[in-house]
Amino acid sequence: MKVAQSAGHAPVVRCAHLIWAHPRRDSLTARVVAALKDEAASQGIEVIELDLYRSGFDPVLREADEPDWTDPKKAYSEQVMEMAASLTDAEVAIVVFPVWWYTLPAMLKGYIDRVWNYGLVYGADKRLPWSSVQWVALVGGSQRNFEKRSHHTRLAELLVDGIASYCGVTDSRVTYLYNTLGYEEEMDDLAGHHQTLIDRSRSVVTRILSAA
Amino acid sequence: MKVAQSAGHAPVVRCAHLIWAHPRRDSLTARVVAALKDEAASQGIEVIELDLYRSGFDPVLREADEPDWTDPKKAYSEQVMEMAASLTDAEVAIVVFPVWWYTLPAMLKGYIDRVWNYGLVYGADKRLPWSSVQWVALVGGSQRNFEKRSHHTRLAELLVDGIASYCGVTDSRVTYLYNTLGYEEEMDDLAGHHQTLIDRSRSVVTRILSAA
Repeated sequence: MKVAQSAGHAPVVRCAHLIWAHPRRDSLTARVVAALKDEAASQGIEVIELDLYRSGFDPVLREADEPDWTDPKKAYSEQVMEMAASLTDAEVAIVVFPVWWYTLPAMLKGYIDRVWNYGLVYGADKRLPWSSVQWVALVGGSQRNFEKRSHHTRLAELLVDGIASYCGVTDSRVTYLYNTLGYEEEMDDLAGHHQTLIDRSRSVVTRILSAA
Repeated sequence: MKVAQSAGHAPVVRCAHLIWAHPRRDSLTARVVAALKDEAASQGIEVIELDLYRSGFDPVLREADEPDWTDPKKAYSEQVMEMAASLTDAEVAIVVFPVWWYTLPAMLKGYIDRVWNYGLVYGADKRLPWSSVQWVALVGGSQRNFEKRSHHTRLAELLVDGIASYCGVTDSRVTYLYNTLGYEEEMDDLAGHHQTLIDRSRSVVTRILSAA
């Protein structure tokens, strides 16, 4: 794990994984990703991008990637072993996705199902090799409607407590970018609202640096 | 929608969709599915089985299956249109899956992402054409540990309130089959425990009949 220590201070972040899932390259999700890359570059952080949709990743966990609970050293499929090995190339990670049915798209869920696997990032003293995992979740509907039914806490509990913390990363948080469709709350200037969301997403890079 | 009315009584269930996801044919999930099929047959109900793993279904939602929020009549991909049309062949549905990371496997999430889509099963006065959706969730860990962190309510809220109810089906419930791995609670007779779970799952067929 490439975590350099600056004298007496928090570890220096040199490289961030940026994992994301959206079918379109021209989506708002993709524009948020571009802003995060730009912000990281401006702060001197290298970014390793994993564009799940364009990388040919198959989110379907098949038998080769089923955990063997009696063998934390199981060799999973070649693709999973390679992807798991590459996690250590970064000190932190940012995961960006649209919220579909109040939770992760299948593509991202399958990435976690397959790659964040037993004996690779949890179990047998293994953990995710990152000091921080930040989630950026784009929500079509309004903050008010999403929070009214506690979808925001439910999803955060899954991602932060259920997954990141279980894999040893306690510094984790979900940043919600709401009302991307501009329907549930009237929006005179949707393009302006999108730009505000994109600009706001840049703070995630700052947060990951201050947390590290 | 083939819902026959018996005189003055609840609708008669003639056919049930049985949708399931597991990589292995010899899994406990598959054995539960076999028991549900057997129980349905013994009660005179036809079963339409959708074995997502063996059907070649691709859970990745691509651009062709993105909702167009301005057009509830959008024609999605051919596969999705066919699968959505086939939903009306049954009056009820049972969905069977292993719980991975406290929620749906990517394969099943992608089925919902793609097929339970805007204008097909919600929006523009559309709904799932079923009187009941029953979920059967196999949990590797113990009931105690799962419930301690409220994973059972969180998942039920997603599936029942978030998804089924949103698609117009208010009769929906998650039946949990716990401790399938037999690790978190000591289990002298794991085979016997599995048989108990399989037997218990049969009650879901009875429930779906009494609810209809």
